[in-house]
Amino acid sequence: MAVKTEIGYTTPDVIMVRGKNLSTDIFGKFDFIDMIYWLNFSRMPEPREKAMANLILVAAADHGLTPSALSTRLTFLGAPESVQGAVASGLLGAGSRYLGTVLNVADMLKKGAATLDPDAADEAVTEAARTLVRKYRETRTPISGLGHNIHVHGDPRVPVLQEISEQHGYFGKHWRLALAIPQVLEQDHGKRLPMNGAGALGAIVADMGLDGIFGRGLMLVGRAAGLVAHVREEAEHPTGQELWDLVLDQDPRNVKAVRAR
Amino acid sequence: MAVKTEIGYTTPDVIMVRGKNLSTDIFGKFDFIDMIYWLNFSRMPEPREKAMANLILVAAADHGLTPSALSTRLTFLGAPESVQGAVASGLLGAGSRYLGTVLNVADMLKKGAATLDPDAADEAVTEAARTLVRKYRETRTPISGLGHNIHVHGDPRVPVLQEISEQHGYFGKHWRLALAIPQVLEQDHGKRLPMNGAGALGAIVADMGLDGIFGRGLMLVGRAAGLVAHVREEAEHPTGQELWDLVLDQDPRNVKAVRAR
Amino acid sequence: MAVKTEIGYTTPDVIMVRGKNLSTDIFGKFDFIDMIYWLNFSRMPEPREKAMANLILVAAADHGLTPSALSTRLTFLGAPESVQGAVASGLLGAGSRYLGTVLNVADMLKKGAATLDPDAADEAVTEAARTLVRKYRETRTPISGLGHNIHVHGDPRVPVLQEISEQHGYFGKHWRLALAIPQVLEQDHGKRLPMNGAGALGAIVADMGLDGIFGRGLMLVGRAAGLVAHVREEAEHPTGQELWDLVLDQDPRNVKAVRAR
Amino acid sequence: MAVKTEIGYTTPDVIMVRGKNLSTDIFGKFDFIDMIYWLNFSRMPEPREKAMANLILVAAADHGLTPSALSTRLTFLGAPESVQGAVASGLLGAGSRYLGTVLNVADMLKKGAATLDPDAADEAVTEAARTLVRKYRETRTPISGLGHNIHVHGDPRVPVLQEISEQHGYFGKHWRLALAIPQVLEQDHGKRLPMNGAGALGAIVADMGLDGIFGRGLMLVGRAAGLVAHVREEAEHPTGQELWDLVLDQDPRNVKAVRAR
Repeated sequence: MAVKTEIGYTTPDVIMVRGKNLSTDIFGKFDFIDMIYWLNFSRMPEPREKAMANLILVAAADHGLTPSALSTRLTFLGAPESVQGAVASGLLGAGSRYLGTVLNVADMLKKGAATLDPDAADEAVTEAARTLVRKYRETRTPISGLGHNIHVHGDPRVPVLQEISEQHGYFGKHWRLALAIPQVLEQDHGKRLPMNGAGALGAIVADMGLDGIFGRGLMLVGRAAGLVAHVREEAEHPTGQELWDLVLDQDPRNVKAVRAR
Repeated sequence: MAVKTEIGYTTPDVIMVRGKNLSTDIFGKFDFIDMIYWLNFSRMPEPREKAMANLILVAAADHGLTPSALSTRLTFLGAPESVQGAVASGLLGAGSRYLGTVLNVADMLKKGAATLDPDAADEAVTEAARTLVRKYRETRTPISGLGHNIHVHGDPRVPVLQEISEQHGYFGKHWRLALAIPQVLEQDHGKRLPMNGAGALGAIVADMGLDGIFGRGLMLVGRAAGLVAHVREEAEHPTGQELWDLVLDQDPRNVKAVRAR
Repeated sequence: MAVKTEIGYTTPDVIMVRGKNLSTDIFGKFDFIDMIYWLNFSRMPEPREKAMANLILVAAADHGLTPSALSTRLTFLGAPESVQGAVASGLLGAGSRYLGTVLNVADMLKKGAATLDPDAADEAVTEAARTLVRKYRETRTPISGLGHNIHVHGDPRVPVLQEISEQHGYFGKHWRLALAIPQVLEQDHGKRLPMNGAGALGAIVADMGLDGIFGRGLMLVGRAAGLVAHVREEAEHPTGQELWDLVLDQDPRNVKAVRAR
Repeated sequence: MAVKTEIGYTTPDVIMVRGKNLSTDIFGKFDFIDMIYWLNFSRMPEPREKAMANLILVAAADHGLTPSALSTRLTFLGAPESVQGAVASGLLGAGSRYLGTVLNVADMLKKGAATLDPDAADEAVTEAARTLVRKYRETRTPISGLGHNIHVHGDPRVPVLQEISEQHGYFGKHWRLALAIPQVLEQDHGKRLPMNGAGALGAIVADMGLDGIFGRGLMLVGRAAGLVAHVREEAEHPTGQELWDLVLDQDPRNVKAVRAR
């Protein structure tokens, strides 16, 4: 097999991306979502797909001092000449537990709903949820997309993400299975763990028929934009040193110098 | 100073991003470019800004087997469970020489055009280019944004990027200085080094009044989308092993096994 | 719970690492392996542990143009100002398939040998291997630490790693299980997949009583040293551009410019 | 030019590293420092070089909750399956300001001492320091290797690092220049900024005749070992969530949920 890609090729005069001339067919004609779809699927997104892709990227973009934002800021403190290193540092946390969880949720829901009809009865969906919960409990695997350290009584993003999914015709069996899981957990096991943002986004990815890698990929693209905002704020109003000091203060064995300023 | 951010905060019931409620004010109402501007500048983009931001992201997204795509694919070969690691690996090359160069170009042009009027005469722009070239040659610093290993006679992206900049009113003194630099290099020094894509994008960033960090940041966001496409293709049709074999073949001291398949 | 570490703390006058003064108790008295053990286990290594830790680091360090070395070189091409980014890029491939596999092997062997006595009879070891192979085949999980794209008839590192393990008294039930797995695969399933270097190193880690994270960690430390050698060679004799050209040449649709040199 | 390396090559039967057979010439015969020198310089270290290389790695290894350790822990929180991502995240901060500074210091001292004789008189060294300080102040470039946020009156590592350098015959013109710089700053400019650990390590690297990339490289290797210790402690006694909570607490707009535990 040769080392080649179907994504694109280049000559001295043209750059081709999946059969289109980057300069004359794409520049000024494609927006970013068009380009994401073209690069990944060799086709343009439908309007409703574009709306949902924008929603996912917006939801991923970040808010406040999340672990990824903190990691980016701490890295920038040591290497301000490397914006890419600071952003990469923050993205590396998008694994199975935060942010990247969208992949795990989408894969879990696809497997769990594989035998469900698109218009399965509620009972069948609940049964599928029950099967899924049982399997995960048997192997002591944590179910992805549930619970939140702050939004303990329910993630405020979830109902809005559901509503927009319904508007665009992407509220299908994966969403329904995802919503049935916490219900089963509560009814059968007395556990209260509401769906979180990543859970809802994983359901969206699955009901849009997208793959888990693409789902985690969108999270990385969206979060990168948020991390850039953190780098820029850090460059203007540095907090990395204060963050370091704050951490040292938590252990009384650390003694800071008295600075004569 | 406290460890805090103006980007956002969160309570059990709401997530606020620069004064707006993420769920009720932003979801379904902001597209991704709106969100990028809101996060970074606390304001919405004008339509022409949105057009240009889309253009920059599209231009950054990738085409074919660039070094960043190769790095992503080689990383995925060893750690397919870590999509974020593969994407981060590719982004780490967005430094001063490729892709991230937009930052260096934007900063260079802003400094070089600082004393130019917005409607400076051509002679003044040429003189500013001459001063810039002299300074860089004196300190043996390479001028960013010039030359390309494939598009040696001119980068096909540049004229289209210029045209779209003109359409949207972003062809200003930084673009003009950027175009004057290769002219000065050829006329005064006999060097033929046409402007490349990163050079044009850096001129756009500068003429839009944006900072260099934001410019490099957009490249990271856009390229992340391209790298996701490479990860997905690699997952379906792996090339990493072939790439490794191909490299080993370049040195006759490496001997591959005869595989009985 | 507080944000604190038992690894160390600091005051204006002293830096303490697990109860020792870094400057007066450690500098000039600890070599690097002592420090690795002190940081990770709060104790000094025995001489035989030191010999094995050196062996693991040496084995991990790299040789030739592995995927991690290529990724490092390609990243350095774009961001030569960021040595740390180039090294990090190469390390990111140390996952479940290459290099980082030591973690997966060690965990697999520990689980698989959990009920074996230290001096179990050969039959019991073979039976444990048979059980392990059956479980992995049932869940279609690839067994880590087997096979190599070049050393198809046996990895030349394995017998030497075994011999040194025996010399130092670290050839125990995990090594024996690891060696029994390819035998079972060949006898019972007709599959010929000899143990590779990572397999042997994982067996060493397990027979030394170390955890899988520490095992993968040693691989990262060792490989970092090799990647530094690649960065230094790349800085002196760049190959990144040639590598890029070589890849483009594999697809005839890519056309390179005729360069007038 | 071909894509090849002088570091090593491989056949089905042997792995060669700079002319030596990895399995039969190196395993069990080289310790890690030997391997670092062999890979990077094609020669074995002298005993005094080995002592100093161990010292540098030990000094780099980490202590307490530095920014790189925090970044590693925050990344592990989101992606515990990717030890390599957590370690890479921490290494990415080894740039021009922290840790990686050794490169900047070594390069600065080599340039500043280029015209000094090995046994230059104190006055000549002071004059070289004066010239260096003047140049840096003229271009408003911060001098690397000075000052510390905790050890404001002097870094406790510096005198010990100096003493060990003297013992091994590596206290030369670069060390002397490095020590003269804070003296000049205080005498001529009234600024009190004592040399820090990275400053001393950069002086060592320069007086050992090593290059700056190798210097920063050793810091990466050494720090990787410390970050592994942090990952392991984090896996046993997680602090990432507490760290996140602690940061949120700094801004009263963030409200945490009342958890019924």
